[in-house]
Amino acid sequence: MKKFLNTTESLLDESLLGFAKAHADIICLNTHPNYIKRLAPTKPGKVALISGGGAGHEPLHSGFVGFGMLDAACPGQIFTSPTPDQMMAATDAVESGGGVLFIVKNYAGDVMNFEMASEFLSCPNASILVCDDVALPKNHSTGRRGVSGTLIVEKIVGAAAEAGADLATCKALGERVINQTASMGVALNSCTVPTLGKPTFELKETEMEMGVGIHGERGHQTLPLSTATEIVAQIAQFIDDDIKPQKDQSILLHVNGLGATPLMELYLIYDLAAQYWESRGVKIVRSLVGNFTTSLDMAGCSITVTLMDDELIKLWDAPVHTAALRWGC
Amino acid sequence: MKKFLNTTESLLDESLLGFAKAHADIICLNTHPNYIKRLAPTKPGKVALISGGGAGHEPLHSGFVGFGMLDAACPGQIFTSPTPDQMMAATDAVESGGGVLFIVKNYAGDVMNFEMASEFLSCPNASILVCDDVALPKNHSTGRRGVSGTLIVEKIVGAAAEAGADLATCKALGERVINQTASMGVALNSCTVPTLGKPTFELKETEMEMGVGIHGERGHQTLPLSTATEIVAQIAQFIDDDIKPQKDQSILLHVNGLGATPLMELYLIYDLAAQYWESRGVKIVRSLVGNFTTSLDMAGCSITVTLMDDELIKLWDAPVHTAALRWGC
Repeated sequence: MKKFLNTTESLLDESLLGFAKAHADIICLNTHPNYIKRLAPTKPGKVALISGGGAGHEPLHSGFVGFGMLDAACPGQIFTSPTPDQMMAATDAVESGGGVLFIVKNYAGDVMNFEMASEFLSCPNASILVCDDVALPKNHSTGRRGVSGTLIVEKIVGAAAEAGADLATCKALGERVINQTASMGVALNSCTVPTLGKPTFELKETEMEMGVGIHGERGHQTLPLSTATEIVAQIAQFIDDDIKPQKDQSILLHVNGLGATPLMELYLIYDLAAQYWESRGVKIVRSLVGNFTTSLDMAGCSITVTLMDDELIKLWDAPVHTAALRWGC
Repeated sequence: MKKFLNTTESLLDESLLGFAKAHADIICLNTHPNYIKRLAPTKPGKVALISGGGAGHEPLHSGFVGFGMLDAACPGQIFTSPTPDQMMAATDAVESGGGVLFIVKNYAGDVMNFEMASEFLSCPNASILVCDDVALPKNHSTGRRGVSGTLIVEKIVGAAAEAGADLATCKALGERVINQTASMGVALNSCTVPTLGKPTFELKETEMEMGVGIHGERGHQTLPLSTATEIVAQIAQFIDDDIKPQKDQSILLHVNGLGATPLMELYLIYDLAAQYWESRGVKIVRSLVGNFTTSLDMAGCSITVTLMDDELIKLWDAPVHTAALRWGC
C-alpha cells in the first residue's frame, strides 16, 4: 500500500488538522469529539444542518460546511460511522433555536448513530435519509445507499435554511430532492483502505465494476471494460428507469470523480452524459463536474441527475461559501 | 491501461467539449484551432493573458480562464505543446489594445511555439517563463521546469491585468512572482499516457520518486517510501535552499495533488508543511490545497511556496471567476 501518511491510526486526525488550518477563514475543528463547524454567523432561529459519515469521501462532508450549506459535519474514521457523541456535541455547538436537521446517508451504522444522537437531544430535530444509489433495487432489504447525490441535497436544503425555512420545510424539501435524485457509479479499480493495506476487490486489466458503492462495495456487475459512450449509456439507463426525466424536464447533471480519475476523463464523461439526455429533449440547466464524493483512491466516477424546477434552481444558485463549493460570496 | 475514453485520438477533443458545456457561463471553446477564451467582458486596453501547454494537467490551464485570471488558454495534445496557430488565433480573439502576455511553462516545445507565435503577432506582446521546479538545479542546461507554481503566477498577474496594469508592469510582476516561487513534487507511481498505454516508469511497492516532473519525468532520486513527515521535510529543504523564507516572512503555501491522491492525504501533507514552516517562524498567510496541476493519473503531490507581501496578497485575494478557482464573484 502506498499512501502519504505517518501511521494509519493518525491519518484522519492529521488530515483534519490540515483541513482546519487551510480553511481557518471558513470553519473550525473541534477535537474530542471530532466535528467541523462553520464560522459564518448564524441568524438566531436558523435550522442547523448537520451531516457526517465515515472519512475517505473528502471533500464530503467537511468541505461543505459553511455559509449556505452545512452548519457542522461529523467525520468518523475511514468508512466508519461517526459516533452519537459527535452529533450531540456538534448540535450543542451550532443549534440556535431553530432545531437541527440531520442529513444522513443510508448506511446501517450512520442511521443507527444519528438516531441514537437524536434520542438524546432536547432541541427539535429531524433526519432525512439520502438513498440515491440506483445500482440497488428500490426494495433492497436495507434500502438504497446514499452516494454522490448527497451534496445536492446539502446545497439545496442549506440555501433554504439560510433563507429562513423552518425545520419541517427543510425536511420536506430534502425529501423531495432525494426523491428526484438518482446516481450510479462505475469503477476501474478498487480503493485501498489504509488499515486493510490492499485493494478491497480485484479487477482484471480488461474489467470494470458497474454499480459500485463508495466504500469499496462491489457493484452489481463485473463487465468487460467498454467505451465511455457505452458506460454512460448503461448508467443513464438505470437513472432514467428510476427518476424518468421527460422531454423538456430541467435537470442538474453531476459527474463525480471517485478519487483517482483525471478531470480530463470526467469532462469527457460529462460531454457524453449531456449528449445522452440532450438527445432525449431533457434540459441540462445546471452542472457540476469534479471530485466531490470520493472513495479514497478509487479510479472511477458516478453520474447523478436531479430533476430541477425554478425553486430548486434558485436554491442551487444561492450563495455558498465552503471549502469545496463556493459561489456568489 | 484503464481509462474512461472512446479512442485515445478523440480523448482531448471530447473532453474539451465537456469542459465547454459544463462551464458555458464562464468560457467558450474554439475548435480548429483549439483554444478556450473567457466570456466575461474585457475593458478595452486590458493586457490579455494567454497561457497553454500540453493537456493532461487539468484544471491547468483551461480551468483558470475567466475574470481575474487568464483571457485564453491553448491546450495541446496530452503532454504535447500547443502549436503557434493556436496562440495566434487566441490572441486575435482576446487582444483588446493592451497587448498580450504569454505565460509559458519552461519546456522546449512550449517555449519554441510561443516564441514562434509572438514573431507573427502585430500587437505588442511579451512572454514570461515559469520555472519553479527546484528539483532541478538552477543552472540546469534547459533551465528549471514550470510546474504547480504556474497557477499562482496566473492568478496574481491576472488580478493586476484586470486592475489595469500595463504590459511591462504585468511582465515585471510575473517575473517577480516566478523568482519568489519554488515547487517540488514526489510520486508514488507513474502516470499512464493514453497513447503509450503503460506507466512511463515503474516503482516498486516500497519506493517513491522524489522530484518528479508533471509529464512522467523521473525525479532526481528513487527512495524508499518514508513517512509523510520525512517526505515533507525533504521537499521543504529544497524549497528553503532556493527561496530562503526567513523568520516573519509571509508565504502562500500550496499543496497540489498530481491526480490520483486523495484529498485526505493532501490535507495531511498540508498540515505537516504548515508545521515545518511555522516552527521556523514563517507566516503562512494564504493557502491552497487540491488537484490543480495534475499529471493524468499520477499518485503524488507537490508543495509550492511563494514569498508574499501586501501587494501580492491583495492581488491573490482579488475576485476571480474561473472553472477551477472562484472567489469574490
